[in-house]
Amino acid sequence: MDFKKYYEDRQKLVNTFLEKRTSRKGISKVDEAMEYSLLAGGKRIRPIILMATVDAVGGNGYDYLSLACGIEMIHTYSLIHDDLPCMDDDDYRRGRLTNHKVYGEAMALLAGDALLTLAFEVMLEQKNVAPTVLIDSVREVAMCAGNFGMVGGQVLDLESEGKTITPDELRTLHAGKTGALFIASVRCGAYMGGASDDQLLALTKYADLLGLAFQITDDILDVTGTTEELGKPVHSDEKNDKSTYVSLYTLEGAEKLAEKTVAEALECLDMFGEKAEPLREITKMLTTRKK
Amino acid sequence: MDFKKYYEDRQKLVNTFLEKRTSRKGISKVDEAMEYSLLAGGKRIRPIILMATVDAVGGNGYDYLSLACGIEMIHTYSLIHDDLPCMDDDDYRRGRLTNHKVYGEAMALLAGDALLTLAFEVMLEQKNVAPTVLIDSVREVAMCAGNFGMVGGQVLDLESEGKTITPDELRTLHAGKTGALFIASVRCGAYMGGASDDQLLALTKYADLLGLAFQITDDILDVTGTTEELGKPVHSDEKNDKSTYVSLYTLEGAEKLAEKTVAEALECLDMFGEKAEPLREITKMLTTRKK
Repeated sequence: MDFKKYYEDRQKLVNTFLEKRTSRKGISKVDEAMEYSLLAGGKRIRPIILMATVDAVGGNGYDYLSLACGIEMIHTYSLIHDDLPCMDDDDYRRGRLTNHKVYGEAMALLAGDALLTLAFEVMLEQKNVAPTVLIDSVREVAMCAGNFGMVGGQVLDLESEGKTITPDELRTLHAGKTGALFIASVRCGAYMGGASDDQLLALTKYADLLGLAFQITDDILDVTGTTEELGKPVHSDEKNDKSTYVSLYTLEGAEKLAEKTVAEALECLDMFGEKAEPLREITKMLTTRKK
Repeated sequence: MDFKKYYEDRQKLVNTFLEKRTSRKGISKVDEAMEYSLLAGGKRIRPIILMATVDAVGGNGYDYLSLACGIEMIHTYSLIHDDLPCMDDDDYRRGRLTNHKVYGEAMALLAGDALLTLAFEVMLEQKNVAPTVLIDSVREVAMCAGNFGMVGGQVLDLESEGKTITPDELRTLHAGKTGALFIASVRCGAYMGGASDDQLLALTKYADLLGLAFQITDDILDVTGTTEELGKPVHSDEKNDKSTYVSLYTLEGAEKLAEKTVAEALECLDMFGEKAEPLREITKMLTTRKK
């Protein structure tokens, strides 16, 4: 398959949807701050994973842009809040000034809040699905994004600063912080595509392992990679003296663990044959990427 | 009717629901920060308005606690974020230290995020309603809470600091900041109770006027009232030199406007007869309150 085309086609669809959906203006200038971060040209990994999962179970990923783009909005809000001075205090994101550096802290806070809120509005606009399935799916996204998932993981991350944590604790932290939205994307894709119970189980395991492999790769790149633009690691977790897969397992150990995790993730896709080819390619893309 | 009992019964129901629903613990200490603000004993105005609206159209408000309490969670998150140093920078709320004074800014930010997220999870758990009606209702709550409503109004509020704005601009600001969640509560109650189109229209107008009357009262109390505990106004908007109904209309003018608005709000309830008695009492309670 022509994976590059597959990915770029969907990236364009996502971008077009997001541009169109934010062209309806609210009552204040917060719209501009929301768009600044939302339309900053991210990789759109999560919505594309959702669509590729629908494809894997025999549906048509194209039909679920509302749900997919809602998850992207949740991801974007989390980046805006993560960059705030009281959190990571970052000045740059993807080579551009962070939201609060452009619009001020109060506006960035509210832009994040508004994006999280809009995410639910947009997800609940999803057509081509039975209403009860949509309710259950969006509820699951909420669970994955909140104190049981992403936000919970961010708090564990905060609390781990300056401490050495155990491999199990690191796993729980990242399962929340990064993994939960991957799981939400994959499971929603599975629901939309009408996956069987067996398929749902395999895909959930796949998403969990993909999130783990993604994070280990991130930790490895923080040591070995540099950004082209700024000459410093994109993520600057190490400045806070946090435990990483490299600090707990050594660089070589982390590389082996990544390789093993990717292999296990790909195994979960075996039952889907040809149709899971996009998910396989996404897996490789995310775990062999460069900073 | 024994309104005191009516209100207190529902307040207890809301508190019990919120306590029970937050007893399921997430993966981090953010749960404690969420509970600190959520279980701080607020008046629970919005959920009780929702339930009273269901009653007004002949349903049973008791049956819609999930939806009602989700809206209370949205209200609570907005208070936590509003109190942050980059916003109003308040140390006290309802006579207790604000969330960030107890848990720190990062935790308070994330507690707000998690409450907003949990709100949607909880609302989507609502039973006793057709799935399509629930989807439309929760989507409408999102619209009222985001850049078209509450968050939009908060941004207009930020931007009005140090400026004199027109009465129309003040109306738009508060229609978003305070009115939108009142409208969400009332309209959701109307949907849950199976209101007719005429009833929905009258109730929406009622909610809009109630929000306006509530805000004018608030502005009047900022001038005439003091808190028992701290000897200073609870809201400290005037410290930022913002336009208020008192600054734009004079104290006497604001009092007249409040009276006229309350009368118009109550008129909207005429068609509901006896059954709207709780809504009438709530209207009086909110517009004759003391600081």
